[in-house]
Amino acid sequence: MSRIESRLASLGIELPQVCPPVANYVSAMRSGNIVQVSGQLSTHANGGIKGIVGDDCSLADGITAARLCAINLIAQFRAAADGDLDRVRVLRLVGYVQAGPEFFEIPAVMNGCSDLIVDVFGEAGKHARSAIGVYRLPFNFAVEVDASFEIVD
Amino acid sequence: MSRIESRLASLGIELPQVCPPVANYVSAMRSGNIVQVSGQLSTHANGGIKGIVGDDCSLADGITAARLCAINLIAQFRAAADGDLDRVRVLRLVGYVQAGPEFFEIPAVMNGCSDLIVDVFGEAGKHARSAIGVYRLPFNFAVEVDASFEIVD
Amino acid sequence: MSRIESRLASLGIELPQVCPPVANYVSAMRSGNIVQVSGQLSTHANGGIKGIVGDDCSLADGITAARLCAINLIAQFRAAADGDLDRVRVLRLVGYVQAGPEFFEIPAVMNGCSDLIVDVFGEAGKHARSAIGVYRLPFNFAVEVDASFEIVD
Repeated sequence: MSRIESRLASLGIELPQVCPPVANYVSAMRSGNIVQVSGQLSTHANGGIKGIVGDDCSLADGITAARLCAINLIAQFRAAADGDLDRVRVLRLVGYVQAGPEFFEIPAVMNGCSDLIVDVFGEAGKHARSAIGVYRLPFNFAVEVDASFEIVD
Repeated sequence: MSRIESRLASLGIELPQVCPPVANYVSAMRSGNIVQVSGQLSTHANGGIKGIVGDDCSLADGITAARLCAINLIAQFRAAADGDLDRVRVLRLVGYVQAGPEFFEIPAVMNGCSDLIVDVFGEAGKHARSAIGVYRLPFNFAVEVDASFEIVD
Repeated sequence: MSRIESRLASLGIELPQVCPPVANYVSAMRSGNIVQVSGQLSTHANGGIKGIVGDDCSLADGITAARLCAINLIAQFRAAADGDLDRVRVLRLVGYVQAGPEFFEIPAVMNGCSDLIVDVFGEAGKHARSAIGVYRLPFNFAVEVDASFEIVD
C-alpha cells in the first residue's frame, strides 16, 4: 500500500468515488506535469455542508466544510495521478468561503482544508494559498476550494 | 480557413477586435507554452450585459452574459496564439458571477461559457473550472471569466 | 545594487520582512521556474487598511490598500527568488476588493497594485489580471492580491 493511502487509512478517511461533472467541463486538466483541479464543494455522500458561514452555520461547521473540500480534492488528485497519490505535490489552493456580513474568520475556515492536506501529504502537501469570503456558492454549499498540483516522476 | 475559424463561422460568431486594457496590465501573458488570460467581462460592441443575476437580470441573461465572456476569451486566445486558434488547448476557466442574495444557480450561468468553449474547440476545449458567486464586478457587468490555455506546437 | 532594488529605493519603498504564515501553508510555491504566491492582504507594519471599499473606506483608501498588497507581493517575490528581484517576471495578478453594495470601481482600486508593479519592474512587471469585488476578506482587510511569476535564468 502506498505511503499516502496508508496515511489516509490511519486517519480513517475513505475517499469518495469521483464522477465526471454533469456539464461541459472536466474535474482536472493536465499540461506537462501540472494539473489544475476544478473547484470542489463541501459535499459528501449524504449531502454535505451548506449555508452561509457566520449566519446559517458556525465557524466549526465551516472548518468541517473546508475539510470535506480537502477530501474531495484528494480524490480528484488520485484520479488525475493515475491512482498514485505518492506522486502528488500540492502547489496551490484557493478557498472560497460563503461568508455572512460579520464573518471575517476566513483563514480559520480554510485551515480545515490546509490542515488535512498537510496532515495527509506532509512536505508534499505544503501549498501557496488564497482565501476569500464570497457572496454565494453553487447550490448554497458553504465552501469551495480549487487546486493545482505537480505530478512528480 | 482554420478548423476553429470555420466552426466559429458556422455558429455565426464574429470575434470582437481586441484592444489593450486601458491600465497597467495586459490581456494575456505567456510563459513557456502556457498563457494566462485576463478576466473578460460580459461586454459586446453595443455594451454588454450588466446587473446582479437573480435580481436585476434573469438566469437566462446570466447564461447569455457568460457566453459573451467566452466570445471575448476566444478573441484573446486568438490574439495570444498569433492568430491561430487551432493551436489552442484550453486548460482552466474561473467564472465569477455577480449573484443576488437568493441566487445559487452559479454553475448554470457558467455553463453559458463552458458550453460555447467546448462547442467551438471540441476536445481541445475541455477545461477544469471553478465557478463562484461574487458580490460586485467591474462596472456592474454580470459575469467575468478568466482562463489559462496551452499553445500546442 | 540590483536594478529593481535601486528602483524601489528611488521610490522610497522599503520592503517588509516576510514571515511564514501562522498556518499550514507557505507564502510561495515553486514548480519549475513558475512561482505561485499566496494572497497578500493590505497590511503594513502598523496595521494596514481595513474596511469595505465604498462604505467604510474611500476609493482612494482602496487604491492605497492595493498598493500595500503590491509591496507585500514584491517582498514575497524577493524571498521566493532567493533575494534577486532582477530575475522576476510577473505573469498574473488576481485582485480581490472587499466591495460595498454600490461600489463597482474595482479596476480603479486594483490599479493601485498594477501601477506599482509596473513602476517597479517595468516590462517585466506587465501582467495578466483579474479583479473582482468580494464580499468579505480575512480580518476585514480591504484588498487581497495573489500572484504568479516566472524566475528568469
